[in-house]
Amino acid sequence: MAFDWIEEQARARRRAGLVRTLRPRPADAPLLDLASNDYLGLARHPEVVAGAAEAARTWGGGATGSRLVTGTTELHAELERELAGFCGFEAALVFSSGYAANLAAVTALAPHGSLIVSDAGNHASLIDGCRLARGTTQVVGHADPEAVRKALGTHEGPAVLVSDTVFSVDGDAAPLAELAGACREHGAGLVVDDAHGLGVLGDGGRGAVHAAGLAGADDVVVTVTLSKSLGSQGGAVLGPARVIDHLVNAARTFIFDTGLAPAAVGAALAALRLLRREPERAARAREVAGELHARLTAAGLHAVRPDAAVVSVRAPSPEEAVRWAADCRAAGLAVGCFRPPSVPDGISRLRLTARADLSGAQIERAVRVIGETRP
Amino acid sequence: MAFDWIEEQARARRRAGLVRTLRPRPADAPLLDLASNDYLGLARHPEVVAGAAEAARTWGGGATGSRLVTGTTELHAELERELAGFCGFEAALVFSSGYAANLAAVTALAPHGSLIVSDAGNHASLIDGCRLARGTTQVVGHADPEAVRKALGTHEGPAVLVSDTVFSVDGDAAPLAELAGACREHGAGLVVDDAHGLGVLGDGGRGAVHAAGLAGADDVVVTVTLSKSLGSQGGAVLGPARVIDHLVNAARTFIFDTGLAPAAVGAALAALRLLRREPERAARAREVAGELHARLTAAGLHAVRPDAAVVSVRAPSPEEAVRWAADCRAAGLAVGCFRPPSVPDGISRLRLTARADLSGAQIERAVRVIGETRP
Ligand SMILES: Cc1ncc(COP(=O)(O)O)c(C=O)c1O
Ligand SMILES: Cc1ncc(COP(=O)(O)O)c(C=O)c1O
Repeated sequence: MAFDWIEEQARARRRAGLVRTLRPRPADAPLLDLASNDYLGLARHPEVVAGAAEAARTWGGGATGSRLVTGTTELHAELERELAGFCGFEAALVFSSGYAANLAAVTALAPHGSLIVSDAGNHASLIDGCRLARGTTQVVGHADPEAVRKALGTHEGPAVLVSDTVFSVDGDAAPLAELAGACREHGAGLVVDDAHGLGVLGDGGRGAVHAAGLAGADDVVVTVTLSKSLGSQGGAVLGPARVIDHLVNAARTFIFDTGLAPAAVGAALAALRLLRREPERAARAREVAGELHARLTAAGLHAVRPDAAVVSVRAPSPEEAVRWAADCRAAGLAVGCFRPPSVPDGISRLRLTARADLSGAQIERAVRVIGETRP
Repeated sequence: MAFDWIEEQARARRRAGLVRTLRPRPADAPLLDLASNDYLGLARHPEVVAGAAEAARTWGGGATGSRLVTGTTELHAELERELAGFCGFEAALVFSSGYAANLAAVTALAPHGSLIVSDAGNHASLIDGCRLARGTTQVVGHADPEAVRKALGTHEGPAVLVSDTVFSVDGDAAPLAELAGACREHGAGLVVDDAHGLGVLGDGGRGAVHAAGLAGADDVVVTVTLSKSLGSQGGAVLGPARVIDHLVNAARTFIFDTGLAPAAVGAALAALRLLRREPERAARAREVAGELHARLTAAGLHAVRPDAAVVSVRAPSPEEAVRWAADCRAAGLAVGCFRPPSVPDGISRLRLTARADLSGAQIERAVRVIGETRP
């Protein structure tokens, strides 16, 4: 039979304790959520929900076509203007997902004959972008400006460095200023994914690139997602207007994909306006992360010091990580559980997200449950 | 400067008349729409809009995480069950876009050492899936079962044929029964993209695969989008339960992407239920396409006989195609304009979509405008 070969992979997964299954959640799950990427607690905010509903009413359930045909509404243009303005860039382009935005940025900015220098800890979507791009990829050690400098030194012609700003597994930040320095020495572009920085880092949540003083630079391109701090779905690329024009003309995941649904555009726009009005949400997310880390460490757990709102706690094995997360869940706490192949270094961990709307009592309860269920 | 090289490409595009620009539309555009992929006229249907708004209210603006962490709601599971049931498959898996669903299906079903036979007219997302997959791709002539047979005959080990069911540019259908026959002779899987078949072809819009008697076969996998006939956003893969389990465990655009926003799930679910209740919408879309084709041909235009709801009209050059579409728009008619590099054969065309809710008078008006503005 055609697909019989998948059975063997399924058996291998079962043997290794690496089977993934979907667990649909109800609308009113009684769990304390430290697993989602809803960093600012906005996904269910009344204004964000109203933004989604109102946009669906005004514009319909879908965008109805590619952004280049019928799929661009005035609402898409509004979000692009406000997002670019907020983050300090000349222009922005909205995509159906952050994944699609990353594929677009990397493929369109790494033509045949170019070099892509890619951090070993990059997100899957950046890696897939490197694989799809016509340029040649050289993977360098994690967060290592010296390695970047060396890789760029070997190449003539267009080059880009591609990196997450905040790495999704351990929550550590890239050394952006040093990386930008290495790029500039060699005339290379900097393409960074601020999925976990937007809404959390920088002045009022303007992101890691803004915090590093690199916003608006003409050799810097940033991708973001609308699905984390902004509580919606979708992604965007921010950069110089000429780069955005280039993406409109060259990025396949832009040209050949249906535009982002109006409801998602409306939700993201409402969240962005909320964040502008309540900039303290960003600082609060960082504060919660710091508190989580301090308390976990005090409890003797091996937690990585967070640079943004992700706190990672190491587990001895995939099986123990799964058991640990399940025990937390049984005690009313939802935590993320990252195992191979989702972790580049093979180390399984619990992944906690520090939502800005967590109370002190909730943080305390979370740490207590994690401590009591530890392997 | 880092991105200076894009200027030369921009100049080349300007010289060739191939510059693409975004034209944001207002909510109440006074144009007659023959450009969108809203085949059943459902994107703004009150029930679809209510489905989006209600889902946002109940579940929030975004799914908040990967489907494997917090991003699967009971609403996602409901849509998957109903979609699979409607199309006649054992199981379904919803993605953030049809593009992501295609990347997932092709990459997860074409492992290292396998052969992918790919139709030369396939959609960009299938092509990108082939590029990302670890298997080896062999491109064969358009809609050519004999060529497929020959390609499969040269290979030992897992193999799949990858094809659109209805090709997006010319609206012609793939010879599915013959292709399935060729695959079965060689034990190869059939992976087809029914983006333009769902809602239009088959009994009550169950799609091209259902119409060909292939629904539910254990060597057939179908991808669909929620962004065309279902008036929303998102995509899905339909197939045997073991294949869907495999995708949950192996497809990077599933594992590392935020779940589809609840509003998009709710809109698609409402549209699907509407289509079940009003199956005549599918037949009406086909009827409108036939009428458009007959009238265009009677007016002496070079229109391709439609197999579904896309009617393609050839233009003498990219410049003429752009001018023609612009003149239609000035006369109140929105039509698609496909130019290189979006057309595999280099032939520019107007692309008309036959919406089920077009009246006879609207069809007449559309054909009159297209005729009067012809090159
Ligand atoms: C670093 C990073 N980049 C990109 C993405 C993809 O964004 P989206 O889920 O909005 O498609 C994610 C997570 O989903 C991520 O963690
Ligand atoms: C044949 C085909 N497959 C896949 C897609 C991608 O689907 P989506 O736009 O929902 O991502 C499209 C169009 O957008 C298409 O025409």
